[in-house]
Amino acid sequence: MTIEGAAMKMIGVIGAGSCNHEIYELAREVGAGIAKAGAILVCGGLGGVMEGACRGAFEAGGQTIGILPGPDKGEANPYVAIPVVTDLGHARNVLIVRSSDILVAISGGYGTLSEISIALKLGKPVIGLRTWPHMEGIHYVTTPKEAIESLRVAKA
Amino acid sequence: MTIEGAAMKMIGVIGAGSCNHEIYELAREVGAGIAKAGAILVCGGLGGVMEGACRGAFEAGGQTIGILPGPDKGEANPYVAIPVVTDLGHARNVLIVRSSDILVAISGGYGTLSEISIALKLGKPVIGLRTWPHMEGIHYVTTPKEAIESLRVAKA
Amino acid sequence: MTIEGAAMKMIGVIGAGSCNHEIYELAREVGAGIAKAGAILVCGGLGGVMEGACRGAFEAGGQTIGILPGPDKGEANPYVAIPVVTDLGHARNVLIVRSSDILVAISGGYGTLSEISIALKLGKPVIGLRTWPHMEGIHYVTTPKEAIESLRVAKA
Amino acid sequence: MTIEGAAMKMIGVIGAGSCNHEIYELAREVGAGIAKAGAILVCGGLGGVMEGACRGAFEAGGQTIGILPGPDKGEANPYVAIPVVTDLGHARNVLIVRSSDILVAISGGYGTLSEISIALKLGKPVIGLRTWPHMEGIHYVTTPKEAIESLRVAKA
Repeated sequence: MTIEGAAMKMIGVIGAGSCNHEIYELAREVGAGIAKAGAILVCGGLGGVMEGACRGAFEAGGQTIGILPGPDKGEANPYVAIPVVTDLGHARNVLIVRSSDILVAISGGYGTLSEISIALKLGKPVIGLRTWPHMEGIHYVTTPKEAIESLRVAKA
Repeated sequence: MTIEGAAMKMIGVIGAGSCNHEIYELAREVGAGIAKAGAILVCGGLGGVMEGACRGAFEAGGQTIGILPGPDKGEANPYVAIPVVTDLGHARNVLIVRSSDILVAISGGYGTLSEISIALKLGKPVIGLRTWPHMEGIHYVTTPKEAIESLRVAKA
Repeated sequence: MTIEGAAMKMIGVIGAGSCNHEIYELAREVGAGIAKAGAILVCGGLGGVMEGACRGAFEAGGQTIGILPGPDKGEANPYVAIPVVTDLGHARNVLIVRSSDILVAISGGYGTLSEISIALKLGKPVIGLRTWPHMEGIHYVTTPKEAIESLRVAKA
Repeated sequence: MTIEGAAMKMIGVIGAGSCNHEIYELAREVGAGIAKAGAILVCGGLGGVMEGACRGAFEAGGQTIGILPGPDKGEANPYVAIPVVTDLGHARNVLIVRSSDILVAISGGYGTLSEISIALKLGKPVIGLRTWPHMEGIHYVTTPKEAIESLRVAKA
């Protein structure tokens, strides 16, 4: 037994708390791919892209961590296995980035942009799917499958 | 399948980052008991009591979350399965408390006292084993076994 | 002109968000003394002891900083000149301690105890007036006048 | 005397911790303008744009607040009158935004972009001078003078 094996690779999925069905399904596929790759999914734990990703990972038997902005775990989507309750508001975005080895940004608004910015500032790999365009440092992909393939080659 | 089953009960173990062998072994027994009770162990992820508890839970096949104060996961003890990296320093103590349904305080110094205080402020059950004495609100026990039994009856 | 003169000594006053008239008046006297000593008052910016201290400092022409737990400055008491808005909840307690060169604890509950604990952990001088008793490391005084005199001799 | 007068308008200046002389001088002019307008300058308290802005405000007799990322006030630039010590790392960016009624972004990298994003997410007015281009929601100006004029009309 190697003790180092206790910690698994953690992949962050970032995106808005509400989204249309198409984006939700993309996130679900990404979440499923992360679980099948044997990694842990980290996200903000709320709805929209976060729920889609958690649902996909949960359905594929994976582990899901939700780093929540509010004061209790009641706001977590139902597919979050491990709610981390911060009560830090938007400051919890930094924790999602720091806790992830690699990040996948799916669509998203200003909150997601703040997370992308912190990730790039910290030199973390960011894979982008239908997200903020033209940002140097984001590795853009066009499908969930491509996003998962990119995870395997990214240097975390 | 009930979706609500995704989130398990989370038990926080708080105590100092360095401790003697006797306290370490008490923490290890508490960690093992938490894992055997089917709960997730939450702690600050560092050494001493935190490592003892993580080790006990890890060895018993349980899940361990370490909410770390520094900027990267390298400081986690080797029994932390899921490192949550905060870079918040002592402010991360509040996250340990908020993320726990019940807390077990084992020995500990001023950092632990700050966590006990926040827990009592928030109305969370606190079980105390060889920790700060004479605090109204702490349910004191004298053995790890008693601590685990108290978990079962505490209203989280 | 010496550039180093830009930063003045900062004195934290910690205590509960609601208190009786007697404690409020003690806090007011302490606040006034801090202002007259030429120092800046730092506190959590809410009511009770925090308001009493801000009011005393404000009335004596001093500067008052309120490090607020919520998402906007509307919750600041009316004597806070500079509201620092954190939206960090109880985690903002650590910022009050870190931003203070010396702390004065007046009465107070578990929130105050968490601040005292962090202050002692960080090795900051803590002056105690009618607060948590019997804590090694607190310099206990019995009047606001004595508290202000203690400020002058404390090694910050 | 109106009690409400205790709190003055607070203007945030955001930008990189190192910058060239030209950008530093722009920041200095903006800082001076903020002080002359009777507002308090809020920033991250470090070097570069933050120092330029603090210096300008300080030289014009204004008040300067530095919300610092590290564990002590030693990292503040010499023109910070009131150091708020957070030890929160990049999470302190959110506090700068929340504590500001209006923000002025000057040049800047990914850290600044994270602050712009949070500001726009929260609906705070953002005035941009030589900063991230083409962002809907930023009011772009080309000179410090124009930036100061924009402060007067922005709805905070």
